[in-house]
Amino acid sequence: MNLRIPGPTPCPDDVLEAVGAPMMNHRGPEFAAIVRRVTDGLNRVFGVSGDVLTLTASGTGGLEAAVVNALSPGDRVLAVTIGVFGERLAAIAEAYGARVERYEVEWGDAADPDEVARRLDADPSVKAVLVTHNETSTGVTNPLQAIAAVVRARGPLLIVDGVSSVGSIPCAAERWGVDVLVSGSQKGWMVPPGLAFLWLGERAWAANAEASMPRFYLDAARARDSLASGQTPWTPAIPIFYGLDKAFEAIRAEGIEGVYGRHAEVARYTRERVRALGLELFARDERFASDTVTAVRWPEGVDGPAIARRARDEHGVILGGGQQSLRGRIFRVGHLGHFTRADVAAALDVVERLLP
Amino acid sequence: MNLRIPGPTPCPDDVLEAVGAPMMNHRGPEFAAIVRRVTDGLNRVFGVSGDVLTLTASGTGGLEAAVVNALSPGDRVLAVTIGVFGERLAAIAEAYGARVERYEVEWGDAADPDEVARRLDADPSVKAVLVTHNETSTGVTNPLQAIAAVVRARGPLLIVDGVSSVGSIPCAAERWGVDVLVSGSQKGWMVPPGLAFLWLGERAWAANAEASMPRFYLDAARARDSLASGQTPWTPAIPIFYGLDKAFEAIRAEGIEGVYGRHAEVARYTRERVRALGLELFARDERFASDTVTAVRWPEGVDGPAIARRARDEHGVILGGGQQSLRGRIFRVGHLGHFTRADVAAALDVVERLLP
Repeated sequence: MNLRIPGPTPCPDDVLEAVGAPMMNHRGPEFAAIVRRVTDGLNRVFGVSGDVLTLTASGTGGLEAAVVNALSPGDRVLAVTIGVFGERLAAIAEAYGARVERYEVEWGDAADPDEVARRLDADPSVKAVLVTHNETSTGVTNPLQAIAAVVRARGPLLIVDGVSSVGSIPCAAERWGVDVLVSGSQKGWMVPPGLAFLWLGERAWAANAEASMPRFYLDAARARDSLASGQTPWTPAIPIFYGLDKAFEAIRAEGIEGVYGRHAEVARYTRERVRALGLELFARDERFASDTVTAVRWPEGVDGPAIARRARDEHGVILGGGQQSLRGRIFRVGHLGHFTRADVAAALDVVERLLP
Repeated sequence: MNLRIPGPTPCPDDVLEAVGAPMMNHRGPEFAAIVRRVTDGLNRVFGVSGDVLTLTASGTGGLEAAVVNALSPGDRVLAVTIGVFGERLAAIAEAYGARVERYEVEWGDAADPDEVARRLDADPSVKAVLVTHNETSTGVTNPLQAIAAVVRARGPLLIVDGVSSVGSIPCAAERWGVDVLVSGSQKGWMVPPGLAFLWLGERAWAANAEASMPRFYLDAARARDSLASGQTPWTPAIPIFYGLDKAFEAIRAEGIEGVYGRHAEVARYTRERVRALGLELFARDERFASDTVTAVRWPEGVDGPAIARRARDEHGVILGGGQQSLRGRIFRVGHLGHFTRADVAAALDVVERLLP
């Protein structure tokens, strides 16, 4: 199997072995040591001084935690949406009673920091800005550092979905001025799904003290208090902790700059191969094409889904499809986490062979 | 290691092997088949005709899902609390704006169905009753069938925490008149933590259509809609699905009545051994002593936590401690999921050796 969807991503063998280890007491000293090591590793990659919190949830649970721990019903929120996951973050805020204004960008494009600035200047009541760093559905990466500068200069909180970016491409939360940052275990972290990672900066913790959206299971303050004794408030997904503890060994061995370099290099290679095949990137401006997932338009008149099925059934290559309105119109190649250039090349070889 | 806490429980070797299997596409046909098999297995054990929903969350996330999918802010709720987990369910309902009346039973006792009836008769505005089937913190099992009869006769919804009961002791949701039932993977199911199971009966689905507590990640309707195509709305904790698929093979081989019988028999044995050691059960009335976890008072003048530490460090036996006000006052022996009488006997042998 060559699993080339943008998450869950393949896991190294030693990670899978760790994932299958026997259970232990989640309130005992041995697990506390694992929690501490994993948290230290997350802090380094997130680029933060305060502790990253680990929640037993999908990335979407992490996104919900980011919203409900920082905001109150009625809060004015600017949601920057460039695809499925930006829209999801906006929908979560609405479900919990935020008054959401959407800055909707045409799918395939990145958000314009100047437009964010204009919208914030036009409405000083905005309490928080929601942004997807890397939009997995369209293969587009927002210029987060520039957006963060614009937001911080104007005061609102910046809440960032880094599910498919953090750990794979640079995202320096504190230095850039991000206030809340979320990631998910099944993306660049090389472990299975089941854990979400949530960081709140000092401004976000101050907001948390006033934030009145209801929360219990995803409550960040409870998670922070438990973490002080190496625990989680509720029984955690122990196997994923085991795996992550092992995965950090590989990340440390490669070095995080090495990890970023590998992602950037293979992403460039992927885009070159796509062009060489006469195919078109879904990202309209290549400067914003994602280094973790490449979205490619199926050519007119080609039955893309049939090709994807043959890739799977005849060649063991699992491509990502298009979501919602992109269903059947694009395919996506994941290149994040545990992969080599050869893995991606083999998948593109199969696409080449199956194209008419 | 002899892990004798009441969850996470030990997993069979073949389950752990399955847990460590490579990732697959959670939107593909192979995973859909696993979701279907696991759901069928859950439906049988829950004793229900509609589908049990599987959420990527701890048991506490399942409890939150049970509340927010059935209720609205302002709803009057009767919370039957006999320990830590009953109180947690009440606190969740309060966090989401329910008006909670507590029927608080002294820890160590079970709830009295007649008292539930009196309280419901006294306040016909009660919309739902919250009950813990098996209270893990005190080792007491509530007479759920009798409570359910009393509640159903009066009309409110019955929302049940079956985290440490379902799959280990009989709990026939539909036949007894339960409306919402929750369980958690790390208890009787013989798999690691990471999944919560949520079932809503017909009355609960009707309530769901009107229920206005905010929800997104834990939204039951989204989970039901995705399940129709063998999927989950958000990327699930795949390793725990793998493990559960394997664990159902063992449950089917033993037969669910065999599973219940083994739990009842070893629980009886545990209580006899405890008495033979001159120790006192925390459950005041043995008729309500739990068949999944036995809570035992440390004798006066004995340093219980020191004994538990020696059991762990010198003998590899991990006992559960007391929670909150019971800290240092009791120990707990888990006998649920994957265990034999010999496992429990070995743990009690160590307690016997270490008692002064």
